[in-house]
Amino acid sequence: MSKTMKQLHSTVTQDGKLQLTVATVDKPEPSDDEVLIRIEASPINPSDLGSFFGPADMSTATATGTSDNPMLVADVPEHLMPTAAARVDKPVPLGIEGAGIVESAGSSAAAQSLIGKTVALMGGAMYSEYRVAKADQCLVMPNGITPVEAASSFVNPLTALGMVETMRMEGHAALVHTAAASNLGQMLNKLCINEGIDIVNIVRHKHHVALLTSLGAGYVCDSTLATFNADLVEALMATNASLAFDAIGGGNLAGEILSAMEIAQARSGAAVGAYGSTIHKQVYIYGGLDRSPTQIGRAFGMAWGVGGWLMPTFMEKIGLEAAAKLRKKVAAEIKTTFASVYSNEISLIEALDLDSISAFGKKATGDKYLICPQK
Amino acid sequence: MSKTMKQLHSTVTQDGKLQLTVATVDKPEPSDDEVLIRIEASPINPSDLGSFFGPADMSTATATGTSDNPMLVADVPEHLMPTAAARVDKPVPLGIEGAGIVESAGSSAAAQSLIGKTVALMGGAMYSEYRVAKADQCLVMPNGITPVEAASSFVNPLTALGMVETMRMEGHAALVHTAAASNLGQMLNKLCINEGIDIVNIVRHKHHVALLTSLGAGYVCDSTLATFNADLVEALMATNASLAFDAIGGGNLAGEILSAMEIAQARSGAAVGAYGSTIHKQVYIYGGLDRSPTQIGRAFGMAWGVGGWLMPTFMEKIGLEAAAKLRKKVAAEIKTTFASVYSNEISLIEALDLDSISAFGKKATGDKYLICPQK
Repeated sequence: MSKTMKQLHSTVTQDGKLQLTVATVDKPEPSDDEVLIRIEASPINPSDLGSFFGPADMSTATATGTSDNPMLVADVPEHLMPTAAARVDKPVPLGIEGAGIVESAGSSAAAQSLIGKTVALMGGAMYSEYRVAKADQCLVMPNGITPVEAASSFVNPLTALGMVETMRMEGHAALVHTAAASNLGQMLNKLCINEGIDIVNIVRHKHHVALLTSLGAGYVCDSTLATFNADLVEALMATNASLAFDAIGGGNLAGEILSAMEIAQARSGAAVGAYGSTIHKQVYIYGGLDRSPTQIGRAFGMAWGVGGWLMPTFMEKIGLEAAAKLRKKVAAEIKTTFASVYSNEISLIEALDLDSISAFGKKATGDKYLICPQK
Repeated sequence: MSKTMKQLHSTVTQDGKLQLTVATVDKPEPSDDEVLIRIEASPINPSDLGSFFGPADMSTATATGTSDNPMLVADVPEHLMPTAAARVDKPVPLGIEGAGIVESAGSSAAAQSLIGKTVALMGGAMYSEYRVAKADQCLVMPNGITPVEAASSFVNPLTALGMVETMRMEGHAALVHTAAASNLGQMLNKLCINEGIDIVNIVRHKHHVALLTSLGAGYVCDSTLATFNADLVEALMATNASLAFDAIGGGNLAGEILSAMEIAQARSGAAVGAYGSTIHKQVYIYGGLDRSPTQIGRAFGMAWGVGGWLMPTFMEKIGLEAAAKLRKKVAAEIKTTFASVYSNEISLIEALDLDSISAFGKKATGDKYLICPQK
């Protein structure tokens, strides 16, 4: 058995370069309560791209190295080097989540019981041929589920579930979601339809309206239309939504959503005093597709909030037991509610192809790449 | 005894004018559980100005009427008329809070027991010679307190107390306050010093630094200095403040405070992952000295929030008993912690003087006007 394995690394060097390589590293060995997973599928999520590219300007990327041992090099703008201070000259293994087959295990009964099973894992360094993990960190899939089917069991499913749980915990009746044609957005619609929750989808393309409508979405507003604000108010009045999750972050959208909520509340008969409606309106920003400042016009009284939202922080907040319940729901519905579709399945070496890099660097296209390290 | 009384009114007319008048209205009579207060002092708070001026452009104000019966008229810009729809042609009585002497009372024992006492009241229409109120809504002052001393017993004192309670309830160690040389800001410093709470004051003038320092404030940062960001980070590291109350609202300040908090947390050894420090940072906007959009640069991870904060909403949230406890504290400390100083004491008629209007329209100068309806 080989004592080494391949693993995707991203390194920011002292001299202002980003290097992407397929490194050869020692194959790990499981200790008593650990298993060794042969990783077969690991998605490239938008949340992977921060570690992947760091602050590099990927338009400067060039391919060096050989076809067996490729390397991509890109420039890091000098003024952004301080933001990468913590990782300079330290190779960063990539890949937040993925799935594979347990190939061997430590001596504990829990670890031994997983041999041969398909398990999913979140924890980094998943763009690797192998990964050790504590047995109790593995999400064990039902029989018959393949690693490709289980690859995206955490980031999108738990984010969608976390959004719905947040809505319930904070007492809102329905949800708004932006960039809603994303993989996550499609999943969130399936989940909301299953659970009888109204969701107002905001998209930026006509064909995204068609896509979500074909999935059964009841409310889809196209922010590029002149009627957008009126459409949004109407959808908010119909659903009574006072909570939004925004993947975009920058620009006016968060403020526009809050304004539309205020108007919808007033038209729906909420008490409106000198400081506007007293029904709390909330936008959680969970992504940064637009890195520019969030601009909030504040034409909506005083009962409002905008803030960051992160799935792992939310899971920590609800506690181990509640989080475990959500993970079990994901495993049970991995082929239905939480199924992911991939536009490309690529090897570790193909992930460093210049065309791939520029394609999966385009966030929120709805395309999703899957890295298959055994390919 | 006169059957009528004087009362300050603000009216937006159908034809796009704002009219300010001293109206003559019926003097009210108390029912069984009510008292009749002869109002002797009522402050002009920044929160009064919204009702006072509506959406009018006060630079267009002209004086009409007579010296005994003055009227001020100003133009309301046409595009702002919809924001005043609810008040068109309806005279709005002004004055959120004030104090006076109970002159007569209804038959109930509770009402009768207040005759002759100095009481403070919050509830609108306080720029009047008289006001009826339920006996149980009156905040009864200790013996020897004058109506002038009791005039500002609600808005600023309960806002300062609400900020400190919010800090405690949401688990923060210390506070940041902007426009901190205001009457409220000075009061908040006195309260924090009494309670051993660190507060970081942000001001925009050198003489405000001197003013707050003379009151014993430990941390005052002047946002007009080139060293402001560094000064703020240092103060945040010293105090561990992760909550700010912002009276300004517009512009970059809220985002700058969050950035400085993030830097302070990282330098103080907080765990900083891919999404920044996980310690929640919060800015509550409670005023709108700058009406321009709030611009948030989001260079501070994902554990952050910005939102509206209103004292009455907070008091409702903590419940009657807790709110009553805070009001009792105000009455007990009205000559010390919660004492207010006024730059001018004016009559109802003098309140419609063009010079007065333009002076108390300048918010956050630290000046505070007191209307004395019996003058």
